[in-house]
Parts: sequence; C-alpha cells; structure tokens
Amino acid sequence: MYNAKAYSAASATSQLAPATIPRRDPGEHDVQIEILYCGICHSDLHQVRNEWSGFMPTVYPIVPGHEIVGRITKVGSAVTKFKPGDLAGVGCMVDSDRTCPECKAGLEQYCPNMILTYNAPDKHLGGVTYGGYSESIVVDEHFVLRVPSNLYLAGAAPLLCAGITTYSPLRHWGVTKGKKVGVVGLGGLGHIGVKLAHALGAHVVAFTTSQSKVDDALRLDADEAVVSRDASQMQKHARSFDFILDTVAADHDINAYLRLLRRDGTITLVGAPPKPLDVAAFNLIMGRRSLSGSGIGGIAETQEMLDFCGAHNITADVEVIPIQKVNEAYERLARSDVKYRFCIDMASLRSE
Amino acid sequence: MYNAKAYSAASATSQLAPATIPRRDPGEHDVQIEILYCGICHSDLHQVRNEWSGFMPTVYPIVPGHEIVGRITKVGSAVTKFKPGDLAGVGCMVDSDRTCPECKAGLEQYCPNMILTYNAPDKHLGGVTYGGYSESIVVDEHFVLRVPSNLYLAGAAPLLCAGITTYSPLRHWGVTKGKKVGVVGLGGLGHIGVKLAHALGAHVVAFTTSQSKVDDALRLDADEAVVSRDASQMQKHARSFDFILDTVAADHDINAYLRLLRRDGTITLVGAPPKPLDVAAFNLIMGRRSLSGSGIGGIAETQEMLDFCGAHNITADVEVIPIQKVNEAYERLARSDVKYRFCIDMASLRSE
Repeated sequence: MYNAKAYSAASATSQLAPATIPRRDPGEHDVQIEILYCGICHSDLHQVRNEWSGFMPTVYPIVPGHEIVGRITKVGSAVTKFKPGDLAGVGCMVDSDRTCPECKAGLEQYCPNMILTYNAPDKHLGGVTYGGYSESIVVDEHFVLRVPSNLYLAGAAPLLCAGITTYSPLRHWGVTKGKKVGVVGLGGLGHIGVKLAHALGAHVVAFTTSQSKVDDALRLDADEAVVSRDASQMQKHARSFDFILDTVAADHDINAYLRLLRRDGTITLVGAPPKPLDVAAFNLIMGRRSLSGSGIGGIAETQEMLDFCGAHNITADVEVIPIQKVNEAYERLARSDVKYRFCIDMASLRSE
Repeated sequence: MYNAKAYSAASATSQLAPATIPRRDPGEHDVQIEILYCGICHSDLHQVRNEWSGFMPTVYPIVPGHEIVGRITKVGSAVTKFKPGDLAGVGCMVDSDRTCPECKAGLEQYCPNMILTYNAPDKHLGGVTYGGYSESIVVDEHFVLRVPSNLYLAGAAPLLCAGITTYSPLRHWGVTKGKKVGVVGLGGLGHIGVKLAHALGAHVVAFTTSQSKVDDALRLDADEAVVSRDASQMQKHARSFDFILDTVAADHDINAYLRLLRRDGTITLVGAPPKPLDVAAFNLIMGRRSLSGSGIGGIAETQEMLDFCGAHNITADVEVIPIQKVNEAYERLARSDVKYRFCIDMASLRSE
C-alpha cells in the first residue's frame, strides 16, 4: 500500500479539497498508472453532491473521476497487455466477476458484480474505490485500455466515459453509412456522439434547444442542425430517422422525437432525466418504434472505440484546467457553461 | 352496387341499429364474402363512441367490425387465390398503395396510404369504408385471408385482429422455445397472446391484476400466473424476461414491468393507454432495455398466423351473440365483463 495525492469531498456540501488516499501495491495482474489527465463527467458532480442518493448513495470522502488517461509506471508479474511507459486509459469500471453471462458476452457493464471506478466497494483495501482526481491509480489489466498515441491526450480522456457511452449504442443499433441519425443535446456526450456518428458514415442531424449552438453543431461534423423548439423544423424530419441518440439529462418532450423515427426506428437514452419521461403509446405503436437505454460499454468495445477514434483522430473538445480550479469548474458545469468537457491536467496536482 | 344489411351508429351517443349500406359489385380483383361471424374488438367501441377523435375522428354513420370470417360467394375475373365456397377472413385493412417500401416489405399496416376496414376513405363508392357488422363485404383479394377449415369459426374471427396483433410482435422479437415471455393483461388480446406464446414454445407468465383470473390464465396455457399488485410475486421475476407483451389499454405502471426484463429485453405495447406512460430512464439504461410498440401485422404474416393457429388448433375464447344484443355487449365490454371476446353470429342479421 502507498499514499497518493488526490482531491476529495468530505460531504455533499463540501468543496473538493486536497487529500491523501491509499492505493494498493500492484498485484500480479495489476497495472499502476501515473494519471496525466482526468475528464470531469456530469456524474462526478451528481455523486459528489449525493444527487443519486436514491439508488447509488455516496460514501464520503469521495474521490471522483472515471475518464482517466495516463502512463504506466509499474506492471504485475502476470501482466501481458502492458509494459511501463505505455499510454493507458481507465473508464467507469475497474472490476467485475468475469464469470457471469454478461461478462462472458463482453458486457461487463451489465455484470451484477461490476465495480465502478469510484464510490464502489473496494475488495482490496476495504472502504470504497477512489477515482481519477489523483496522481495515480492501480487497476487490473483487464480493465485498462490502450490509448492510441496520436490522440491529443487531454481530449482523449473523456472518450473513456462520454466516448464509449455514445459509441456503444451507435454500434449496437447498427449506425452505418446510409443511415439517418439524430443526436439530441450538444453537451459532453452529444458533441462526441455527433463526431462518432459522422465518422461511422451516417447522415447526422444535431438537435439543440439553442440557436447559438447551430454553428457549433455543423463545425462538429453534423450534416444538419435543428432547433428543437421550432415545430416547423421538427416537422420536416417526421418519420425519417433510423436512430436517435438522446443525451439529454434534463426533462424534455420525448414524444416530439419519437414522431421523427421511421418504421422500426429507435431512440436510445444515455442521459437520465431525474423525472420519468411521458411516453405516448401511439408514438411507439405507429411504426413499431422503440425507446431504449444504454449504459457505457464493455471493455472490448471500449478498446474498439479508442482504436476507432485513433484511426479517425477523434477527441473531445476540452477546456483543460488545473485541479485547483475544479470547484469553479463544477459550478460552471452545473449551469452548462462548458464547451464541451472540462479536463483536469494532473500535473497541477503533482506540483501542489 | 348492391344493398346489404348492416348495423350502424348514427352518432357518438347513438345505439347501433339496423341499416342498409351500399357495397360495390366485385371488380376483377375483388372477392365478395358472405359474413358468418364478426368479432367485437375494443376499437369498435372506441370508434363508435368517437373516443379517438384526436387522431382518428369518426365519420357517421359508422359500421364497425374488422374481425371477419365468412364464405366466398363471388370472385372477380382476375382473382387467383380464391373461388366461391372458400372460407375467408378479413382483418383491419382492406387496401394500401402496394408500392411503398412498407408494402414491398410485406408491412402494409405501416403503409402511409393503408385503408382501414371501416371509418376510412372509400375510393370505390366515396364516403367511408363499412366494416363487418354486415351480411356481406367486397374486398380486394390481396387483403383476404384463407381460414383453416378445422378451426371453430366463431373463435377464429378474433384472430383477424387480436390474433395478428399479438402474433406479429411475438414473432418480430424472436419468441421461441427457451425464451421467458410475459403477457400483461388477460383480455381479448392477452388471452390469445398467452396461447400463441405457449404454442411458439416459450415459458409463458401471465400478469393479471385480479386473483380471480389466475386459474383462467393457467387453463389458457400460461406456465405461471402473477398477480401484478403483489410486489413480492413481481420481485421474484426481476431481470428474468426476454420479452413482455403488454396488452393493457388502461393506465398502469410500466416501470414495474421494465424491471422484470433481462439485459436487452423488450416490452412491446399493443394496447394504447389514453394517458402517456411514465417511463424512468434508468430502467431502460440498466440492462439496455427497450419499450416498443406494434400495430396489427402485414397480410403475409396474418396468413402465417392463421395457418399456425390451424396447425395448433388455436382460437379465441368467445361468447357468441346475435347482433340484436350488440349494444348490451358494448356495455359489458366497457366494464370488461367478457371472457374473452364477443363474436356476432351474422345469421341473426340475415334472419332479421
């Protein structure tokens, strides 16, 4: 066991502040990573503030962060995938049971015994797992990803959550050339979803509530941008979409989007609005449409996504901050004042 | 053109009463059918009372009925599938454009120019189409089905709507041996859904709100029956269903059923509750679940369903009534007092 610098919050109303946390010494299957960058995901904010207390209560102190990119400093004796000096990534999961049908299908994210990167039981040290707002982390190699060396590393970090969360449903629901695909919401998830859907060859329509984001959407490789509050713009797209990726975590009218699907089309939710969505049955029955959900993605698919992003040079648009500005970044994130993801440069922690 | 006896309603508050309606003389592709039985579908009641005025306003007088079984009395010169004396069925549709992608895919029910059996524009005679509460009907042979001669005809009539509405989603979502399938609601649709899912080889669990229907569910070939108001019975089935067919047209808690789906499971709505359903996003995201809808089925699949029912001797459980009791039957249907479908013996109309 060794000590590592980190930033943690002591309660739902505390600021994130410097702390020292224990990390295990690498076991034979473990990889130790010096963290270079960690993206700030909206779920970090939710959990620091215990806003998901109903189904995932926060254990304090909490060290958030699950969009981790770094360089390997040490590997266990049985590690085969990595060597010291390699670039590496860690996303939302650090363990699972490896034996259940979900794990065997490469869908560790649905394993009933999956361990999240932070705020989950830590079987090695007791207590809970601590995430990426830290100078280092130790993770079983199965849950460590290779990061293509051509990518801008600060922009690559958010791929570990926002990237796979959007890539997985795009692939699962067959998004390819010739498909018309919508992306609802142009935030941390949505802006990567637009880039990925475009790179997969689809005709991409971005939906945003603000006219001000239309130009941005087109710059991000959307083929069209629609202001969703404009009923006539929406009507033009009625019954035309094969797939719509809905990244919005606030209340919104899902029926307006269901009506845009063609027969057998699907809307998949990757954002989780706090209140239930009102769904009119006829919008599903007419055209045999589906409303689905999807959570992150498996490890093999996360690697596939990173390799795909390497080949297409796709990264998130990030605003890089020192960790000392993390509380300010949370305030701005809470009012959606970021284009499109904050990313912490962890050098700022080491020099503290 | 010729006159046929029928029962029609003159307004949303009128009783159904004897009437004379025009039918076209059979054209070269048409089949003339002497109607022997016509099932009473809940949508007949909705439309007679103009309860779907928002999206399908009723034109009066209305002659409802789209669960038609009869015997062919005349065929046009170009008809190849039928000859006089054959048994025949007509369901919810009597025409479509035959040229759109939906029609070419054998999914006439999603054709934008599909013509419903009643209360839809009649391109031959003007006005609207008149349904099966009549002594005869004339329909293009493409929309006429062969009815297996071994089936009890009064029980076969409801297959033309209730049968295909449940069979189509069971087939589309891959219900076969080895799958665990739920059927929510034990009414006109649900009771046939249970029989069909069982005959397709699935392990079938019927959900009902009333303890009194549990024995009935088992008699109808359900492997298990669950009283949905009993939380502990529901909990036992958490995360276990491949597919759930939801036939309930009243308000109900869809989240309680979403939680019963395993990963990648689907609930398909074939009933349309009047108010939107509250759907919690997390119930879709956890396990990549889907909520879908499905409307009737195509002509080829309707024939497949009838042949399947012939092979497995499946018919609806019907209470056969003379047409003179149709208004009383509507009152009882409105309070769900029927096991499980009323069917009109049209001999009662001819002898009137």
